[in-house]
Amino acid sequence: MVPLFARLAILGPGLLGGSLAGAVRRGGLASEIRVWARRQAAADAVVARGWADVGTDEVAVAVDGADCIVLATPVGVMPDLARRIVDARDRLADGVLITDVGSVKGFVAERVAPVFDAAGLTFTGSHPMAGAETAGFEAARDDLFAGAACIVTPQASALPRMRAFWERLGCRLFTMTPAEHDAAVARVSHLPHVAASAVALAVLDGDGGRAAVAGKGFRDTTRIASGDPGLWTEILLENREALVAPLEDLIARLGEVLDFVQRSDDGQLRHFLAEAKTLRDQALAAPDTRSHG
Amino acid sequence: MVPLFARLAILGPGLLGGSLAGAVRRGGLASEIRVWARRQAAADAVVARGWADVGTDEVAVAVDGADCIVLATPVGVMPDLARRIVDARDRLADGVLITDVGSVKGFVAERVAPVFDAAGLTFTGSHPMAGAETAGFEAARDDLFAGAACIVTPQASALPRMRAFWERLGCRLFTMTPAEHDAAVARVSHLPHVAASAVALAVLDGDGGRAAVAGKGFRDTTRIASGDPGLWTEILLENREALVAPLEDLIARLGEVLDFVQRSDDGQLRHFLAEAKTLRDQALAAPDTRSHG
Repeated sequence: MVPLFARLAILGPGLLGGSLAGAVRRGGLASEIRVWARRQAAADAVVARGWADVGTDEVAVAVDGADCIVLATPVGVMPDLARRIVDARDRLADGVLITDVGSVKGFVAERVAPVFDAAGLTFTGSHPMAGAETAGFEAARDDLFAGAACIVTPQASALPRMRAFWERLGCRLFTMTPAEHDAAVARVSHLPHVAASAVALAVLDGDGGRAAVAGKGFRDTTRIASGDPGLWTEILLENREALVAPLEDLIARLGEVLDFVQRSDDGQLRHFLAEAKTLRDQALAAPDTRSHG
Repeated sequence: MVPLFARLAILGPGLLGGSLAGAVRRGGLASEIRVWARRQAAADAVVARGWADVGTDEVAVAVDGADCIVLATPVGVMPDLARRIVDARDRLADGVLITDVGSVKGFVAERVAPVFDAAGLTFTGSHPMAGAETAGFEAARDDLFAGAACIVTPQASALPRMRAFWERLGCRLFTMTPAEHDAAVARVSHLPHVAASAVALAVLDGDGGRAAVAGKGFRDTTRIASGDPGLWTEILLENREALVAPLEDLIARLGEVLDFVQRSDDGQLRHFLAEAKTLRDQALAAPDTRSHG
């Protein structure tokens, strides 16, 4: 396939950034891949795996001649990285497309996009909904994005190339505003994470041995609670405004169940469980690719 | 292997009972397997699959000459089934071992065991922690119990044969009193089920299309919410006394997270997530076979 980009730079080769390097290489989306990492050894590991041509700990070297740049670090680091890219703007290719893979888009729109805008560079946010409870390049896989949803919060001028990029990586594309994105991921991603952690604590605190008698249900319900606590603390707090209402909603629903159970209300409890099953079964039977918002 | 039983009867060939027939056949644990179902056609299906020798809709035929009987119906049906078995007690083999695979043991101890006790028959409760969000014999698998925990609430006289039975099916065995069992499964099984359903509702209610952008985390966290609502309503209400405290605990923990998020309390939120991860990782790294209680 014809490469979309001549030189693609990925900043931050962790699970997402590293997998992206592998997927771009595998799909032949870029003629050359450069990777920047805080530690040179981390960048070298990507080159050693054959997923990057250049590995460096200098931002200016990574983005030199790049016509596509992907920020794949924790979101909190991105404003500073953006300033370092802008400092090197004379070295970027004309019309360079800059995006990220961060989990929270309001923060990115407020703190990252303006840095690029002020320098006349085109930035558009992306969020591929892929990941794992394991973190780091060791867990990276070149098929991580296949079949995943990817939400973009586009600048109109950047949309065609962004769409082509993610779709060629196998993603189902959705477009939203940053606020719509943050409200959606607060529900579909951040709320399940908090719930999984709370269930793990409610089940195991005081007697971790209980897990020995648990079936597969407990294991699956709490799987994402094994995600990196530092990373998730950052994500949840960056999205705290959007997370409050879903959390209150979940607490209220559990309060309803408690009430049904205490009153032995067979009909209401059955309705609750049936509605959850119906919504879930219908929703997961038909993942679609329509645009939201 | 030498059969443990000459004639084993399974009453209720759904997912658990049907899988048990397959596992007993596969492991050669009984010379003959008989299956009772409310509908003759359901019993015939087990025979057609080669997992039973006799399929019948008459309890007296199923238990005729049996030296092991397993109740695998919904728990609410068991007291009546127990009376029908007692009515046929002259046809049972001497020393017949009677057990069940119900999810709640207090109810069984109060409503099922005494029926057998009064007739001088040996009943001991079992609960293999195996299952799936799919129900019915179509979903049955002869390896469903391999590696699963199985809790028995034993009569001392029945324990050696019960232990041999479940261990030969590949289960890790735990012994508990009925009250200990119900408290444990309220945490490890029933609470995750309620949480999965509540998360599914909080995420999807009002916009089922949100699931299209969800990643694997949402799918796994809510998987068991697709279980049968009727079956789970019965299970949750039969165990309602043991379920109240875990539910209150979960609600309180989610309330804590809400507070951390609203106050942007980085340290407390990180501690919460880290503790959940540590407990889960440690617990699932080392499933053991020690007896509880």
